[in-house]
Amino acid sequence: MDTVVVTDVPRAPLDAIDQLADYGVATVHEALGRIGYLGPDHRPTHLGRRIGGSAVTVLCWPGDNLMIHAAVEQCQAGDVLVVTTASPCTDGLFGELLATSLQARGVRGLVIDTGVRDVAELRAMGFAVWSRAVSAQGTVKSTAGAVNVPIVVGAQTIQAGDVILADDDGVLRVPRGEVPRAIELAKARVDKEQATREAFQAGQLGLDRYGLRDKLAALGVRYVTAAEYGIR
Amino acid sequence: MDTVVVTDVPRAPLDAIDQLADYGVATVHEALGRIGYLGPDHRPTHLGRRIGGSAVTVLCWPGDNLMIHAAVEQCQAGDVLVVTTASPCTDGLFGELLATSLQARGVRGLVIDTGVRDVAELRAMGFAVWSRAVSAQGTVKSTAGAVNVPIVVGAQTIQAGDVILADDDGVLRVPRGEVPRAIELAKARVDKEQATREAFQAGQLGLDRYGLRDKLAALGVRYVTAAEYGIR
Amino acid sequence: MDTVVVTDVPRAPLDAIDQLADYGVATVHEALGRIGYLGPDHRPTHLGRRIGGSAVTVLCWPGDNLMIHAAVEQCQAGDVLVVTTASPCTDGLFGELLATSLQARGVRGLVIDTGVRDVAELRAMGFAVWSRAVSAQGTVKSTAGAVNVPIVVGAQTIQAGDVILADDDGVLRVPRGEVPRAIELAKARVDKEQATREAFQAGQLGLDRYGLRDKLAALGVRYVTAAEYGIR
Amino acid sequence: MDTVVVTDVPRAPLDAIDQLADYGVATVHEALGRIGYLGPDHRPTHLGRRIGGSAVTVLCWPGDNLMIHAAVEQCQAGDVLVVTTASPCTDGLFGELLATSLQARGVRGLVIDTGVRDVAELRAMGFAVWSRAVSAQGTVKSTAGAVNVPIVVGAQTIQAGDVILADDDGVLRVPRGEVPRAIELAKARVDKEQATREAFQAGQLGLDRYGLRDKLAALGVRYVTAAEYGIR
Amino acid sequence: MDTVVVTDVPRAPLDAIDQLADYGVATVHEALGRIGYLGPDHRPTHLGRRIGGSAVTVLCWPGDNLMIHAAVEQCQAGDVLVVTTASPCTDGLFGELLATSLQARGVRGLVIDTGVRDVAELRAMGFAVWSRAVSAQGTVKSTAGAVNVPIVVGAQTIQAGDVILADDDGVLRVPRGEVPRAIELAKARVDKEQATREAFQAGQLGLDRYGLRDKLAALGVRYVTAAEYGIR
Amino acid sequence: MDTVVVTDVPRAPLDAIDQLADYGVATVHEALGRIGYLGPDHRPTHLGRRIGGSAVTVLCWPGDNLMIHAAVEQCQAGDVLVVTTASPCTDGLFGELLATSLQARGVRGLVIDTGVRDVAELRAMGFAVWSRAVSAQGTVKSTAGAVNVPIVVGAQTIQAGDVILADDDGVLRVPRGEVPRAIELAKARVDKEQATREAFQAGQLGLDRYGLRDKLAALGVRYVTAAEYGIR
Repeated sequence: MDTVVVTDVPRAPLDAIDQLADYGVATVHEALGRIGYLGPDHRPTHLGRRIGGSAVTVLCWPGDNLMIHAAVEQCQAGDVLVVTTASPCTDGLFGELLATSLQARGVRGLVIDTGVRDVAELRAMGFAVWSRAVSAQGTVKSTAGAVNVPIVVGAQTIQAGDVILADDDGVLRVPRGEVPRAIELAKARVDKEQATREAFQAGQLGLDRYGLRDKLAALGVRYVTAAEYGIR
Repeated sequence: MDTVVVTDVPRAPLDAIDQLADYGVATVHEALGRIGYLGPDHRPTHLGRRIGGSAVTVLCWPGDNLMIHAAVEQCQAGDVLVVTTASPCTDGLFGELLATSLQARGVRGLVIDTGVRDVAELRAMGFAVWSRAVSAQGTVKSTAGAVNVPIVVGAQTIQAGDVILADDDGVLRVPRGEVPRAIELAKARVDKEQATREAFQAGQLGLDRYGLRDKLAALGVRYVTAAEYGIR
Repeated sequence: MDTVVVTDVPRAPLDAIDQLADYGVATVHEALGRIGYLGPDHRPTHLGRRIGGSAVTVLCWPGDNLMIHAAVEQCQAGDVLVVTTASPCTDGLFGELLATSLQARGVRGLVIDTGVRDVAELRAMGFAVWSRAVSAQGTVKSTAGAVNVPIVVGAQTIQAGDVILADDDGVLRVPRGEVPRAIELAKARVDKEQATREAFQAGQLGLDRYGLRDKLAALGVRYVTAAEYGIR
Repeated sequence: MDTVVVTDVPRAPLDAIDQLADYGVATVHEALGRIGYLGPDHRPTHLGRRIGGSAVTVLCWPGDNLMIHAAVEQCQAGDVLVVTTASPCTDGLFGELLATSLQARGVRGLVIDTGVRDVAELRAMGFAVWSRAVSAQGTVKSTAGAVNVPIVVGAQTIQAGDVILADDDGVLRVPRGEVPRAIELAKARVDKEQATREAFQAGQLGLDRYGLRDKLAALGVRYVTAAEYGIR
Repeated sequence: MDTVVVTDVPRAPLDAIDQLADYGVATVHEALGRIGYLGPDHRPTHLGRRIGGSAVTVLCWPGDNLMIHAAVEQCQAGDVLVVTTASPCTDGLFGELLATSLQARGVRGLVIDTGVRDVAELRAMGFAVWSRAVSAQGTVKSTAGAVNVPIVVGAQTIQAGDVILADDDGVLRVPRGEVPRAIELAKARVDKEQATREAFQAGQLGLDRYGLRDKLAALGVRYVTAAEYGIR
Repeated sequence: MDTVVVTDVPRAPLDAIDQLADYGVATVHEALGRIGYLGPDHRPTHLGRRIGGSAVTVLCWPGDNLMIHAAVEQCQAGDVLVVTTASPCTDGLFGELLATSLQARGVRGLVIDTGVRDVAELRAMGFAVWSRAVSAQGTVKSTAGAVNVPIVVGAQTIQAGDVILADDDGVLRVPRGEVPRAIELAKARVDKEQATREAFQAGQLGLDRYGLRDKLAALGVRYVTAAEYGIR
């Protein structure tokens, strides 16, 4: 492992990140052509939060949170800490004291491939966390790792400075340079979705709105009644 | 796969379904002799809901929600959409726009063997969902499947028109023709449970109420003190 | 299996248990040198509860809750029921009627290696549960097991009379004789944590407070800028 | 649960089953339009076996193999025993003695949703097993279940008398009445596959043989060199 | 964690262990009344081995195999090394060099709750391993643990000096003092099984041999023909 | 998703790859400082193989193997095909016909994040496969993906042209440019391991060879006899 702490990572402008975060994970994921989603395994410790920020990445040894401490110093206002371990681990590498330290620096939340602990306290503090597990299991501070190197979290490679969006649907990675295009595409999608929403509320079907009847026919889908199908 | 949409599926009367749904999943499951439960893997996206309805079944290809659109047209007020895929899948096949369309038709909820997305919006709309996962991962609309054919969801085979009950304890299937008998059995069980509840509140033990002391003895269960057992 | 019900198990004093429980699972776990945690798989049916009590242990056959009924009689005010099965099982071995019976005896909660049911009712009653699953699947009362013998639950061996702490972070086992020492160590840790919390709020880093800079250097961790590292 | 043993189940002719079984699971699954596969969780206890037979179905209580004994009597030469439990279970419900009994009746193998034990002995006997787990954990004989009722095993509903194929790729269900059509379709597929195999050996590409180049273009797939794509 | 190495652990006589091991895991488990099995998650790295020995227990930190090195010195001929970690871990804590060291001391095998590596070499050496995973992921030697303290592995608590049996069915723990009784019970069971085997080969049914027909009737199990049951 | 096929990917020299592959996954992983391992979830369809090659990467839609066909054309002698899907999938995306096509081009094996089928035939052909699952479940050819873009497989990001090593211990990624250094480090490690092996065979302990006695003492590890520790 390359045991290094990378400093002075460039970030996207915070106002652009905030604009993008408002659209939410599912919308931005879809607007970008269905890319960047970390997968279904990172769940929020409390519902109803929607955050965006710049990734500070951390690679720890399993059962060891030494490098999270090294990472705190690299965090600034508007960041999201993203942590993984060299191999699968459910331990509580992060708790209320680290959250206090990050909150004091203006960090917006944590995405972690392991467990977290002190979740009642984290909720009370309003510190947003997405994790694979909740675990009181404590850790040591013995083995080197890395900060701000590329890490794999779920189905994505996260680079330092990537933009991280997270809400109740999970966690999304947007490359730093893609933020302006993502905002534009998300805005277009939201407008289109609003028109669709109104049409659906008025009773139009997706079958008609998306022109799917022809596709069903072309794929050979047949319509039969329950009686014909043998349902009594 | 038999790529077919079955129409005009017969339903149980809605007032009977509503009467049954009030008893809740665990009670009806128990009243019917412990059958029909889909298993522990379908969890509600928000707690405290209790619904019942007639199953409209959907079989999709993994990563593809084309057939959900075909199914919407087959739904009517009082239905519950029940969706699975041809093989295991966690993608978000269903979100807020489809929920809008279903809600406009009076559909009461969704049971899905995959993921859902837009869960914050679904909660805000009050649209009830039981799913295996939450995932923002989007889908295509490319491959045929089927609507209202029998599907396997968890531990049960669901037929179109089956009555589906769902609450915080999970999801239950009741065959359409069994609804009247299920109501009767559930009512009897609730009455019996109320008597048991009062007895338990008054301090009676299940050991005595269910006549289990003799069974324990017959099974050879012995009573020993902690001291005799060697607990200091 | 030794089919036995052990009676008259000695408990720790309730006021000491209550004092210890206030510190919470993560703090006591850490104070005792990171031992006793059952692992990340036992989740609360509702958040925000923190309980402590004396373990009454139950070993059931899978799909069978006979021995829970035998265990109720062995419970007294201030106890926590701890249940496992002879092999992995997700069934709902426990529901609202058993909770009514336990609540009438002053039992504080349930830790169970299987599923529970009636979770909406359990929340309404305020009966605290930590379980591996939620499942409506009912059980029989046919096969013998044991009460108050040592059982393995998650990563721990639980003895009757052990002190059980549980909150949103999971479940902890403290040996009965260790309670006084645990209180002392937890108090010391809380005091130290409060000082650390204030230092972190004031901007001090863990790197400095815990003297980790030297350790990082000794481990060969290097600092390089993003530009040097090749992040554009 | 409907506690019933169904007798005198009609079977498909054994010579037709044998003819079909020779084609193997993957080929027949594909020939029938990709249906009937139980999923990836049932693995053989030894590799290199390929069997076919008529399903005798068993529904047991978890931790209890009483109904397997009832099922043995319903088995005849050419059958495959298919076993599940009312809820998830990994116990060893089946071992060498039951295999001896089945082998004496000409039963060809076992598909089981739980564990098996005595696997070294089963291999030595040449008795073929597909299971979810291997487990020495023993069972009781206390609770009723059913024989030859429809059961859900993995992703399929199995009816008594269904034809079961199993090999290193897993387990397939073919409805009894479909066997003649399945043989015909499998034969056609094997002939086509042989032609394809020879073409591929000779260097033809699937892209050309299946006409996929146009589809790639229609889907907007572009070709770029590594240099253009920025791979150094 | 109590960071201690316990020395001079008493063992059961090797000839008794060998005698017991010959009976195999499933038979001894059953003979002792279905206790002591670690569960279905520890699988052999190669099939067809059957070993027995005295447990030398090791508790490591996740991602760290320091204490295995400390344990080697405590091993003697006829031992089985049993290793777990303070929290779930899949890393390869053990490989061919440690196996060489153990083999030189006459150790008979390894049971490990994590991963192992060099499995091709371990097979070539004939060193028997039961593990949860195979993983090349290496470890550090930084954090203290314990040797010969009680550890939880799967569903069992293992004490130093316990007798460990392992074969293709998994791993069993027999308390040291129980070996003579276990041999006697296993012998009785093997004799009984041989009689049953011969009866089954001769066509007798378990239904008759175990007297289960009356039990089925008492449990209300009915026999109906397929025609009556509606199977066409 | 960027639907692109990248052509003309540079490879490392085959003789260097072969030289490296001989050292095996665990040794190279360790020699490089414990990096590059994909994790414990990719298992070989047959034991005893050790391969190396240049990665041709494929990103498919779940349930769809269209892009594998596009990838075959990009493969040359000495390559290893590495396949993932846009979201988790266990289907059999690959079977004997594709293996025939790849084998005709001199491809050395397959690493796939999904299932494979025709495993008996693959073994008979001698085509080496590492996969997450075995599944007969077939796929469609409908949705675009990508070839030779970076993909995440298990815990690693794989780039086209990366060197892939695979054996019974799993799968390792070595960046193309690192091959010469990896050979050198692996050779040094093998030499060191041989010396250690001989020392261990001669009875030296790791405690002494690695100087761990002082570390244990520094970490506060105490030695106590079983009698002192209370083991009778």
